Amino acid sequence: MALIVKKFGGSSVASLGHIRRVAWAIASAKEKGEQVVVVVSAMGGETDRLLKLSEEITSMPAGREQDALLATGEQACSALLAITLESLGHRAHSFTGMQLPLITDENQSKARIIDLKTDILKKAINDGIIPVVAGFQGVSESGNITTLGRGGSDTTAVALAAALKANCCEIYTDVDGVYTADPNICPKARHIEKIAFSEMLELASLGAKVMHVRSIELAQKFQVPLVVKSSFNGERQTWIVNEEDIMENSIIKGVTLEKNVSKISLIRIPDCPGIAHQILEPLAEAAINVDMIIQNASIDGYTDLTFTIPTTDLNIANELVNKVAREIKALEVRADNNIVKVSAVGIGIKTNPGVAARMFKALSEENINIEMISTSEYRISCVIEEKYGELGVRAVHHAFGLENKNNHQKEQ
Amino acid sequence: MALIVKKFGGSSVASLGHIRRVAWAIASAKEKGEQVVVVVSAMGGETDRLLKLSEEITSMPAGREQDALLATGEQACSALLAITLESLGHRAHSFTGMQLPLITDENQSKARIIDLKTDILKKAINDGIIPVVAGFQGVSESGNITTLGRGGSDTTAVALAAALKANCCEIYTDVDGVYTADPNICPKARHIEKIAFSEMLELASLGAKVMHVRSIELAQKFQVPLVVKSSFNGERQTWIVNEEDIMENSIIKGVTLEKNVSKISLIRIPDCPGIAHQILEPLAEAAINVDMIIQNASIDGYTDLTFTIPTTDLNIANELVNKVAREIKALEVRADNNIVKVSAVGIGIKTNPGVAARMFKALSEENINIEMISTSEYRISCVIEEKYGELGVRAVHHAFGLENKNNHQKEQ
Repeated sequence: MALIVKKFGGSSVASLGHIRRVAWAIASAKEKGEQVVVVVSAMGGETDRLLKLSEEITSMPAGREQDALLATGEQACSALLAITLESLGHRAHSFTGMQLPLITDENQSKARIIDLKTDILKKAINDGIIPVVAGFQGVSESGNITTLGRGGSDTTAVALAAALKANCCEIYTDVDGVYTADPNICPKARHIEKIAFSEMLELASLGAKVMHVRSIELAQKFQVPLVVKSSFNGERQTWIVNEEDIMENSIIKGVTLEKNVSKISLIRIPDCPGIAHQILEPLAEAAINVDMIIQNASIDGYTDLTFTIPTTDLNIANELVNKVAREIKALEVRADNNIVKVSAVGIGIKTNPGVAARMFKALSEENINIEMISTSEYRISCVIEEKYGELGVRAVHHAFGLENKNNHQKEQ
Repeated sequence: MALIVKKFGGSSVASLGHIRRVAWAIASAKEKGEQVVVVVSAMGGETDRLLKLSEEITSMPAGREQDALLATGEQACSALLAITLESLGHRAHSFTGMQLPLITDENQSKARIIDLKTDILKKAINDGIIPVVAGFQGVSESGNITTLGRGGSDTTAVALAAALKANCCEIYTDVDGVYTADPNICPKARHIEKIAFSEMLELASLGAKVMHVRSIELAQKFQVPLVVKSSFNGERQTWIVNEEDIMENSIIKGVTLEKNVSKISLIRIPDCPGIAHQILEPLAEAAINVDMIIQNASIDGYTDLTFTIPTTDLNIANELVNKVAREIKALEVRADNNIVKVSAVGIGIKTNPGVAARMFKALSEENINIEMISTSEYRISCVIEEKYGELGVRAVHHAFGLENKNNHQKEQ
């Protein structure tokens, strides 16, 4: 009997009506003979509501307590879905991260999974009970409630699928898979049927909200068959597969716009060994993800350093950087959240050297100034002024002919 | 150093503003040198919000899941209070019932405490951390989240005070203690400084909402010094003590009005052995609390039976009784929810035989007809027509001179 882990995100369980439709879908899979393990996020908007409460109290809520607060969102949703399934005549049990337990490290708000016990789940499945697991949360070895970071329910689902050796992990969301760009920004965006783990990883890191980065890493590592589907519109889907299973020859798979990005610049800092480390170490300790880093050429023994971070970490990063800036006698610290990042992603980038130039050209043709650039094997990213974000995406999307199903994207 | 358990009910933590004031009060106690353990209910209205969600799904939500849902209310509140305390510069950790753990039986929604581990709390206290415990909840031996019944946070607080051998358990609520009657009904109601456990138990059973019945039983059993105070108005308070510590000579301590009461009458039933048992057994099986029972004198081998139940159980009780009524060929079943119960409570009742007569006289002087009567060691209750409820309370209150601080209540 096939064992399927089905994960439903916040928009799929946004209301009791949504939860009822999800319950019907689960019941129908069960009746078809699938063994189902369900993972849910909090009801749409609930995590934001809880975050707003704690932010009203303080801009720096204690991590341990914030996690205990946020974990209630998923717990409540899993209980509501289990109540609904039971009311439809199925047996269902909700489980919190602590009940499984899903054991994590002590890193509050961004915890990583250390171990995942499946005894309780296996017993439930054998007893004909549908387990409904509260995603996003775990318990640390010292007994604290932890969360896996925003979108962590995907990670819970993939980890469960790996631990249970499930036949497949289905990620249900409000779109029917992955697109070449956000259709709200780029009306000509096309649905993608198959995408490589590596490409999906880049898309997810760049703010494509379909899936959580770590869940994709985990799925790749444990080779969990992964598919993204719409909760309520079952026609199309996107499979996430190994690179060698991708037969298409497109260079670029998609274009993303990342809005949660800010930059901090330190002006006129001493250009001596260890200075970048001194600046960035406190950020690393605070688990702030520094992305692009640019250091200007040195003049008179001084230089400037600019880096990007998630806007959500801007306040704390700014505070930490200002502290170091005083120590190293920097002339000035500038913070700017008026920027976005446009990226082109695809496994063809590493074998096609002209891709970056083509992207820069597309942006310059729209008179968009590129403030920062970074590239990786599978990705080219440009930081531009926020107001040009959507236009930039459309320009790059068009430059690589992504609107055409059989685009060949030959180099120009 | 004095160790105090402080419990804050839903109205004391109804908003973030309320939570902030509670945090100040805790911080101030801590700064005075008290060791504090805090227990909180859900934010006012939150439990009702969650109940409404599950009731929208089904009228009979699965107990295990309902408890997992409701437990989130206290968890969220404990985290928010801990965040607030931390933002004031104190160290604070929230704890769920599962984290302590507070171990209960498997009786979902009405679980009883089996064991309460204090190691984690003691460690926190020794580390200078203020523990903020989510009340109302526990975990069963098989690992299910359970709740202790409405008002169960009081029970959590008293159980913690007993287990930690605390110097005192302070119950903070929206009133500054216990009154001789509900001041909203009886403007002359007087504040009570000391009340016996036995009296408080009767008051709580009769719908005085100040404290949960089981918490008072527990406090009496473990001799936990217990005091009821206002969260935000710290002048007065009511101590709940042993009978022998009450020095006042009042016969009656207070008068209550219970509205959640209905009566069912079976007319013309055979007056034979076992008939009352046959009628009431199904109600006991359905865990419906039958209170007053009256059986008329037998005429021609037939009699009438009347009993009271909580109005919240009226529908199901009526159904069960009608079934038996058909079997035993009763002439008629009459249900009436147009009644209330006025009770006088006091440890002086058992030693003052004239008290009941005085109460009946007070009601009859207002032309209020008494439909049913029951008495116990500490209580006299009269069922009267609903519309006379408030008037009845005022009449009895006045008859015993409860408005006077040094009333002597001599027999007339």
